[in-house]
Amino acid sequence: MENIIIIGSGPAAHTAAIYSGRAKLTPLIYEGLLAGGVAAGGQLTITTEVENYPGFPEGIQGPELMDKMRAQSIKCGARIKTITVNKVDLSKRPFIVSAEEERVEAKALIIATGATAKRLYITGEDRLWQKGMSACAVCDGALPLYRNKILIVVGGGDTAAEEASFLTKYASKVIVIHRRNTLRASKVMQDRLFQNKKIEIIWDSVVTEALGDNLLDGVKIKNIKTNQESRIEAGGLFYAIGHIPNTAFLEGQIELDETGYIKTKPGTTKTNIPGVFAAGDVQDKIYRQAITAAGTGCMAALEAEKFLSERH
Amino acid sequence: MENIIIIGSGPAAHTAAIYSGRAKLTPLIYEGLLAGGVAAGGQLTITTEVENYPGFPEGIQGPELMDKMRAQSIKCGARIKTITVNKVDLSKRPFIVSAEEERVEAKALIIATGATAKRLYITGEDRLWQKGMSACAVCDGALPLYRNKILIVVGGGDTAAEEASFLTKYASKVIVIHRRNTLRASKVMQDRLFQNKKIEIIWDSVVTEALGDNLLDGVKIKNIKTNQESRIEAGGLFYAIGHIPNTAFLEGQIELDETGYIKTKPGTTKTNIPGVFAAGDVQDKIYRQAITAAGTGCMAALEAEKFLSERH
Repeated sequence: MENIIIIGSGPAAHTAAIYSGRAKLTPLIYEGLLAGGVAAGGQLTITTEVENYPGFPEGIQGPELMDKMRAQSIKCGARIKTITVNKVDLSKRPFIVSAEEERVEAKALIIATGATAKRLYITGEDRLWQKGMSACAVCDGALPLYRNKILIVVGGGDTAAEEASFLTKYASKVIVIHRRNTLRASKVMQDRLFQNKKIEIIWDSVVTEALGDNLLDGVKIKNIKTNQESRIEAGGLFYAIGHIPNTAFLEGQIELDETGYIKTKPGTTKTNIPGVFAAGDVQDKIYRQAITAAGTGCMAALEAEKFLSERH
Repeated sequence: MENIIIIGSGPAAHTAAIYSGRAKLTPLIYEGLLAGGVAAGGQLTITTEVENYPGFPEGIQGPELMDKMRAQSIKCGARIKTITVNKVDLSKRPFIVSAEEERVEAKALIIATGATAKRLYITGEDRLWQKGMSACAVCDGALPLYRNKILIVVGGGDTAAEEASFLTKYASKVIVIHRRNTLRASKVMQDRLFQNKKIEIIWDSVVTEALGDNLLDGVKIKNIKTNQESRIEAGGLFYAIGHIPNTAFLEGQIELDETGYIKTKPGTTKTNIPGVFAAGDVQDKIYRQAITAAGTGCMAALEAEKFLSERH
């Protein structure tokens, strides 16, 4: 029987492990094997330079930061299994966590499985990902790579509108490409977009190819009404087409919101099930940063520690 | 006129600066000059080894971590003034921030002035602070220094009870010293305390002196009913007598709770005044960790950026 099982491998999971490890709860982490389509370490493993994680004034590579956090978890007493949890039973206590062939009991559970940014996987994307292509304007927009370039944002919702506005701080021009002829973004966000002279919108179109050898230097687009294809010069391509929270394995076990994110009591990491806590992007569709995820990982560990000492 | 003024100097303030700096808002930080009784950098400047800030598996000295965050803020475009804000006017827009002789206008404000742990300043405390003396069991309890020692907790409230229970994970024995003959802690917490065989309570007593040359090795205590003095051997002395949020300069300007902490909308850093955000310990009396403070600093910057782009 485990005290705490942590499911996940990003900043939230490892911060929860550091805190619960130091509290002598010997947490067990299931970091997963390509769970959610990304390597153990989470979304930071598919970024390059991280400039905004506090404590690293010279910046740090995303994978290196996650290596450090993982090493710190182990040093604090966490044990890590590189297999993917495919099922949990939260209907009785102890909770049961199933990963491949194993079934393990746990008194408390911290879910930090993250969310995966949607991507289009167009031609050239494998070659140019993070070399002019990104799924997070707030994370990557300020990198020198994108300064004074034409930047393309794909999407039509609030996030796309926000990220387009945000990128005008750095770009010579921002082009929003949307496959419909109206935006799903709120009225307020649309107004901001239309009023911004640095932003152009191309309607009824999709990006079909990322161009460039070592760095993105343009895209191919296609008008889906006329089927006309064209090329646009660009120094950056940002996907803003949403995220998928990694909660499929929780099917029917815990309260999710209408988009699949775990619901937590605001200002805490408490879910609707006492003893089950959620941290990081799996419960956050607003901030989605490494440092905010780490903060909630800490909260989850402190709350789980308190839960265990009161109940057990 | 400033876009964003950040008041504070700890992890919350610098994370807010890193994010708002990268968003090209050129934030101005008032880090204060011994504001709240601690050096710029906040409470981490009076700790030594920090083992639980994610990203540093070998640990990092508190002051060094804060030097790094400060350097990162500057690198991201923040300007820093080492004077203390003594007054703000939030009743009109732009807000007015007064520090010594200056009065500066700002469109948005992030308050991250922290909270200061109460200390007793007994004889020997100057010499032995962080050498066996601490005001944070969660932060410091796991350090090798405190393993298998007799540890003393001073206080009688919920925090004291929680910290005493927490410290039994590491200590050979925990002695709670309280100046009354009943605890203020909740019934549940008291029961946990009384049932724990590793915990002893000494009533009606105060600690009068910290003993030891380079490391604490005991304390002098006095029974305040009998005036009898005695010595106790101990390897650690933890104050759990509360914190004072650094909000005196806000007098009447913003909504505070009954203990002086800034009220925020749970799950956000929004205060009752649109455009004024609060991050870190000044609005958190539960988690109080460097990493949670940094997380809320990031949230405040993202919320301030959104506020500014919608309003201005």
